[in-house]
Amino acid sequence: MIRKTRLFTPGPTPLLPAAQFAMAAADMHHRTPEFRALFQKVLAQLKVFAGTKNDVLLLSCSGTGAMEASVSNLTSPGDRVLVLTAGKFGERWTALAKAFGCEADVVSAPYGETFDLDEVKKALKPEHRVVYMQATETSTAVRHDVEAIAKIVTATDALLVVDGITGLGTTHLDVDGWGIDVLIGGSQKAVMIPPGLAYLSVSERAWAAMEKSKNPRYYFDLRKERKNAAKGESAYTPAVALIAGLGAALDYIAGQAGGDLEKGRIALIDNAQVNAEATRAGLVALGFTLFAPTAPAAAATAVAVPEGMDSGAVVKALKAKFALVTANGQGEMQGKIFRVAHLGFFDYLDTVAFLGAMEHIAKDTLGLPVEYGQGVAAAQKVYAKAVNSAQ
Amino acid sequence: MIRKTRLFTPGPTPLLPAAQFAMAAADMHHRTPEFRALFQKVLAQLKVFAGTKNDVLLLSCSGTGAMEASVSNLTSPGDRVLVLTAGKFGERWTALAKAFGCEADVVSAPYGETFDLDEVKKALKPEHRVVYMQATETSTAVRHDVEAIAKIVTATDALLVVDGITGLGTTHLDVDGWGIDVLIGGSQKAVMIPPGLAYLSVSERAWAAMEKSKNPRYYFDLRKERKNAAKGESAYTPAVALIAGLGAALDYIAGQAGGDLEKGRIALIDNAQVNAEATRAGLVALGFTLFAPTAPAAAATAVAVPEGMDSGAVVKALKAKFALVTANGQGEMQGKIFRVAHLGFFDYLDTVAFLGAMEHIAKDTLGLPVEYGQGVAAAQKVYAKAVNSAQ
Repeated sequence: MIRKTRLFTPGPTPLLPAAQFAMAAADMHHRTPEFRALFQKVLAQLKVFAGTKNDVLLLSCSGTGAMEASVSNLTSPGDRVLVLTAGKFGERWTALAKAFGCEADVVSAPYGETFDLDEVKKALKPEHRVVYMQATETSTAVRHDVEAIAKIVTATDALLVVDGITGLGTTHLDVDGWGIDVLIGGSQKAVMIPPGLAYLSVSERAWAAMEKSKNPRYYFDLRKERKNAAKGESAYTPAVALIAGLGAALDYIAGQAGGDLEKGRIALIDNAQVNAEATRAGLVALGFTLFAPTAPAAAATAVAVPEGMDSGAVVKALKAKFALVTANGQGEMQGKIFRVAHLGFFDYLDTVAFLGAMEHIAKDTLGLPVEYGQGVAAAQKVYAKAVNSAQ
Repeated sequence: MIRKTRLFTPGPTPLLPAAQFAMAAADMHHRTPEFRALFQKVLAQLKVFAGTKNDVLLLSCSGTGAMEASVSNLTSPGDRVLVLTAGKFGERWTALAKAFGCEADVVSAPYGETFDLDEVKKALKPEHRVVYMQATETSTAVRHDVEAIAKIVTATDALLVVDGITGLGTTHLDVDGWGIDVLIGGSQKAVMIPPGLAYLSVSERAWAAMEKSKNPRYYFDLRKERKNAAKGESAYTPAVALIAGLGAALDYIAGQAGGDLEKGRIALIDNAQVNAEATRAGLVALGFTLFAPTAPAAAATAVAVPEGMDSGAVVKALKAKFALVTANGQGEMQGKIFRVAHLGFFDYLDTVAFLGAMEHIAKDTLGLPVEYGQGVAAAQKVYAKAVNSAQ
């Protein structure tokens, strides 16, 4: 039987066909009026997609490059920063801060959980220049409470930098209202194109801080990018094809709401949240345990396999039987959890298909006592309720 | 009449259709056996394309990112380095070295010329940790004598870093034989795909130097990339679609020589050199002056317009009349020269087409005393001679 490859990984996510075609067709030089028009259009769209009036810049690198830019442009060697970490991507902030000579204080939550707000409040000192966190921690599929943490941080002089790489397009973030100084996104996530681009919004406070920062940066020099962006250009040769794809994807997202990108963004977030909720309901109905039950992200769902079983076996079986690609746990979570994504170009019937496959795995591979249809039915109830309440 | 858009810019260069299709189709996660197989294949191909037994790494960024990596990984603040500069890209080395706290001594040649070897020999001191140069300076279309400079540098302890971004695939470079410690390439050049990837070869001496370097680096940490490459992976999420395109392009280059990539690379270099020579002959026959007559690159040709004329007018007329995209001079060369490329997916009939267009521009736009066919005929003689001598 035919088995279509289906990416259910939290990045790369399924590609939008219109974006694939735009990428392939983008035989364009980057110092031409055509490119400047495209670039300015995409930068303006990204401001709407990030939901901010702040500058939004686009870098040719993966998300980690924009994370580095948020460290090298905002800190000097010896600066104290506060990192909030609850997984592999939080740990990346610590490693980055140390690589650039910062003293990193850390508030951590166990894998699968989010931060204790009192602990954050206590840990945040007047000496901290920047607070680094994730909107959603992709490695554990946990959503952090950015709004509550922003309230704590904006009461101080510290800047707030939020890795929204899987948070953007899956959770509501009010950059300007909450006071997020830098919000980072990546191309292979909710915006439906391959990896290779990162974008970030930068507040006036962050621009001011950059004037004092003494860490070296060149390829990721945000002030240079800003100057060039004002002319519709990038500082260095940009990933033209990916930018063309990104424009097509943002057009598609706007098109889902009659051409209104702001509404399209909200519809995309709702879509991820309903699919995530339906997935969780389906998996629980099949007897699986959610790894992050208290603060589940809509970007992805992390599923714990029963004691003594290997989550890698589920990942392998889904791939072998249905060409369905999920992600194993990372680091010490490998073998214990697997992750299935909802961010970007996923629809409800993808969720139905995934749960249908999971029923086969649960019953036929893992030998769990489940009936066919049991997980799908639970998801269908969530969907029916969401559709009815939206009407 | 139909006017097909034709890129004649020295990067981005015309896209290979097979690579465009591969890019569009690359709906692939980067931590899967499929991707690892692709990545290992491409890294192995890049070693052949760079002509070296050294490690070759692939970074998701444009060429400037790999230039930064060659500074941040190989130097410490306060180090003295020697930069050989004869144009905008040479100047980028100086800016990068300074950004990372190095003391940069400079040997410069006027725009349009290459270095005086005695001057290089005199300038190179035992304190210099690294010598930075271009193989071809894209902004002036000058070819530097990497072999002769390598002889000077390898007599010392300094490392030799060569930006071969437009040199690779257009000029013969013997990395291992000459002792080039780092050779840098970019995706939007001879390898026929869009911008967004850079690659670099790294010698054992360079790896050893990295152990002592104290400059901060994270996204461009080459030691981390090497460790991951050994497993068929990249350190951070790679630009998957571009890597799939790159593999298809390297397959095509090998296919031009019966599947032998080493021979294909040589054929690609010959192709660029014959097209460059034919272009120069055609332009001279039309009364134009070559900007870099003594050391012309095969990557591109820089053409000076007659005194009192604006090279931008030629660029604009080629675009308006024939949808043919060339590049104006950069910086103070703007208005004085324009550049036409030969690197990558160009064939001889592209050269004929370009010269045909230039005859219209020369006669009809600039009012120069030329006959139709005059430039093309000069190019045809070069081609006929090259083809005959190859037989």
